[in-house]
Amino acid sequence: MQADLICIGNELLTGLIENSNAGFLARRLWSLGIEVRESVVVADDMETISNALQRAFARSEIIIFTGGLGPTDDDITREAVANTLGLKLVLDKNWLKKLEGFFNKRGLKMPENNRKQALLIEGATLIENQGGTAPGAIFERDGRLIVMLPGPPNELKPIFDRSVGPFLKEFNRGNLSRLKTLKCCGIGESTLEDKIKALGDWDLPPISYVAKGYEVHLQIKGKGNAVEAAAAIEKAENRLTELLGDYIYGSNDDTLAGKVAELLTNHNLSLSLAESCSGGLLSSMVTDIPGSSVFYKGAMIAYSGEVKIGNLGLRKELLEKEGQVSQAVAIAMAKAARALFHTDLAVGITGIAGPDGGSAQKPVGLVYIALANARECYCKKLNLGGGRRAVKERTAQMALDIIRREVLDSSTNKG
Amino acid sequence: MQADLICIGNELLTGLIENSNAGFLARRLWSLGIEVRESVVVADDMETISNALQRAFARSEIIIFTGGLGPTDDDITREAVANTLGLKLVLDKNWLKKLEGFFNKRGLKMPENNRKQALLIEGATLIENQGGTAPGAIFERDGRLIVMLPGPPNELKPIFDRSVGPFLKEFNRGNLSRLKTLKCCGIGESTLEDKIKALGDWDLPPISYVAKGYEVHLQIKGKGNAVEAAAAIEKAENRLTELLGDYIYGSNDDTLAGKVAELLTNHNLSLSLAESCSGGLLSSMVTDIPGSSVFYKGAMIAYSGEVKIGNLGLRKELLEKEGQVSQAVAIAMAKAARALFHTDLAVGITGIAGPDGGSAQKPVGLVYIALANARECYCKKLNLGGGRRAVKERTAQMALDIIRREVLDSSTNKG
Repeated sequence: MQADLICIGNELLTGLIENSNAGFLARRLWSLGIEVRESVVVADDMETISNALQRAFARSEIIIFTGGLGPTDDDITREAVANTLGLKLVLDKNWLKKLEGFFNKRGLKMPENNRKQALLIEGATLIENQGGTAPGAIFERDGRLIVMLPGPPNELKPIFDRSVGPFLKEFNRGNLSRLKTLKCCGIGESTLEDKIKALGDWDLPPISYVAKGYEVHLQIKGKGNAVEAAAAIEKAENRLTELLGDYIYGSNDDTLAGKVAELLTNHNLSLSLAESCSGGLLSSMVTDIPGSSVFYKGAMIAYSGEVKIGNLGLRKELLEKEGQVSQAVAIAMAKAARALFHTDLAVGITGIAGPDGGSAQKPVGLVYIALANARECYCKKLNLGGGRRAVKERTAQMALDIIRREVLDSSTNKG
Repeated sequence: MQADLICIGNELLTGLIENSNAGFLARRLWSLGIEVRESVVVADDMETISNALQRAFARSEIIIFTGGLGPTDDDITREAVANTLGLKLVLDKNWLKKLEGFFNKRGLKMPENNRKQALLIEGATLIENQGGTAPGAIFERDGRLIVMLPGPPNELKPIFDRSVGPFLKEFNRGNLSRLKTLKCCGIGESTLEDKIKALGDWDLPPISYVAKGYEVHLQIKGKGNAVEAAAAIEKAENRLTELLGDYIYGSNDDTLAGKVAELLTNHNLSLSLAESCSGGLLSSMVTDIPGSSVFYKGAMIAYSGEVKIGNLGLRKELLEKEGQVSQAVAIAMAKAARALFHTDLAVGITGIAGPDGGSAQKPVGLVYIALANARECYCKKLNLGGGRRAVKERTAQMALDIIRREVLDSSTNKG
């Protein structure tokens, strides 16, 4: 079963508002076994909306509209859909009463232009909106299911989860095409693909790849009925796990930071950081995880040489001899953080994020990441590209992977 | 002049990756006076890409593709565009050499499947990609300008800004419909709209509003020829600046963090931080700005009580009496950071990001932000909503605004 998304709104085409609804709906539909065939953003324009609907109507079983249900003159989704399909708009007296009540409660008279928000396509079911004045609507026409949702994400998301999702689940029962994502890090996209191709006799479901910074995600598509799809996915997952081992850190909604948090919590290990070029990004990623206070103590963001010396206690001679960006400094930072914050593990990061500060010997993108535990302190050297923000992001991701492998290895050694 | 965006990738249709390129390109094109007519996301599928291209070709002068230029089998944008337009793909020997060099430098042999990334549509100009292996391409065909860009945002964005933007600017000269965005912070969207409506006799260009977290952006649309548009925008900007004063922090591509960096640099003031609930996010936002090392010394991420006491030197009794989340602790943190890092200004942040840790008296979203300068230390109390990440983001934005106003006020007092 396939769906088309039609997102309506001039503000989306100017980029003033990020179209987060498309990604949200796509993820929700996938998890219901419904594939998004195409997702389009069009202007608040009668002809354009009509063309988009006709295209979608010709090929998808489900068509979801977002936006254009507001009270102002440029909100014309209702009229456009009704005109295109030759349907009438009828007044929903219950919603009109609700609207009037909504304004009365605030001591206001309902503006005349809000009245059109109570117009419903004939035969459609109104979907209540508890967060705004625009209700949704759902109806069938010539074997197509058409869903209309308000544009603001804080209205659309609860409406979908409360009403539309459960309906679609029922609608699509017995017609599932399932999906599983395996998430890898520490290996490049093409190396990964080569490894998988080298398996040769791959008679399993289709796999697609996507690189996300330092990570590669593998998406397995299990076709057929629910039982067949689940079996195919399981078989594929087993073979890939055997092949890729530790490169796979998790699946589906797992995040690398979340996995690291889980490992540290389960092994009762505490963590601290000393960051220079990553500037606090790693600390922020760690603290994005609810419950990170269980294992995370804190960090010294030692952005300047003075702080590395005065606050982390590194020797001035070391910095002068080795340079701020060096293996020796990364190691000294990790050791200093471990001592300062009294943690089991500590990471020290120094590098050149750019755009300035690079040299022939030490180019932009050169980064050292050191990890200190009770027994030792080791360091990894990286050469990263892609600009300042990308260098920071890849550094933070790589550091998370180093922590992950440290915990996995130490637990293996103990066992 | 109008453009169509065609974003290619199964991972966008499953919602695995948020399509941030569409918004980025839309904003950039707007600022160049080019209107996006339609923006579509399609699968890595020959027929679908071909259909999308034919539709776009029939109505827009500019067609921009993103994605599908990688080395793996499902990356088929080059082939699809060439087939649809009846063009050949030719090997670009220079890029092939670069690719081989790229792998050699890392001590690797180039995988065979990367070779196709050196294939270029005949007659197209190759656009260098300094952040990855997939180059872009630009060519004209039957009066249409076609641009192909790699999908990863950290590759696409610099390529656009360095090569495609300047080219399009030239291409579109003399055909402008201009746009200016004024960026405000510290004032809500509806308060702002009320203020502007109260001007009454507004005979200037249309304005649209959009709230982005703690900021509100005002978009002024100047129509007509280039001279008329520029004059209308200037007149509107003057009236709005007079009305809104310090609420406006900048315009167009300015960011709040960038403005703060500019102010601190120009006033020769140094900054340090002590962050608890924001967990390093503010530090990371500050260090995202190239050249921030001029004014930024570092931070103590004091996530645990032990670090607040042991490393920032707060009194244990203070924490016990006032609680970790309190005005007194925020003030003590700011003062401690200022002393520890020897900076002119320091900010201390403590709060409850959630989802746990709240109480009736101190709910999730309660945040204190203190700023210490040479003369005094003051504190702002916030009650924020929207979940853990939103609390962190709004806290960091609010802290930046507090620093901005501190520098503006102190320079006014001096003057």
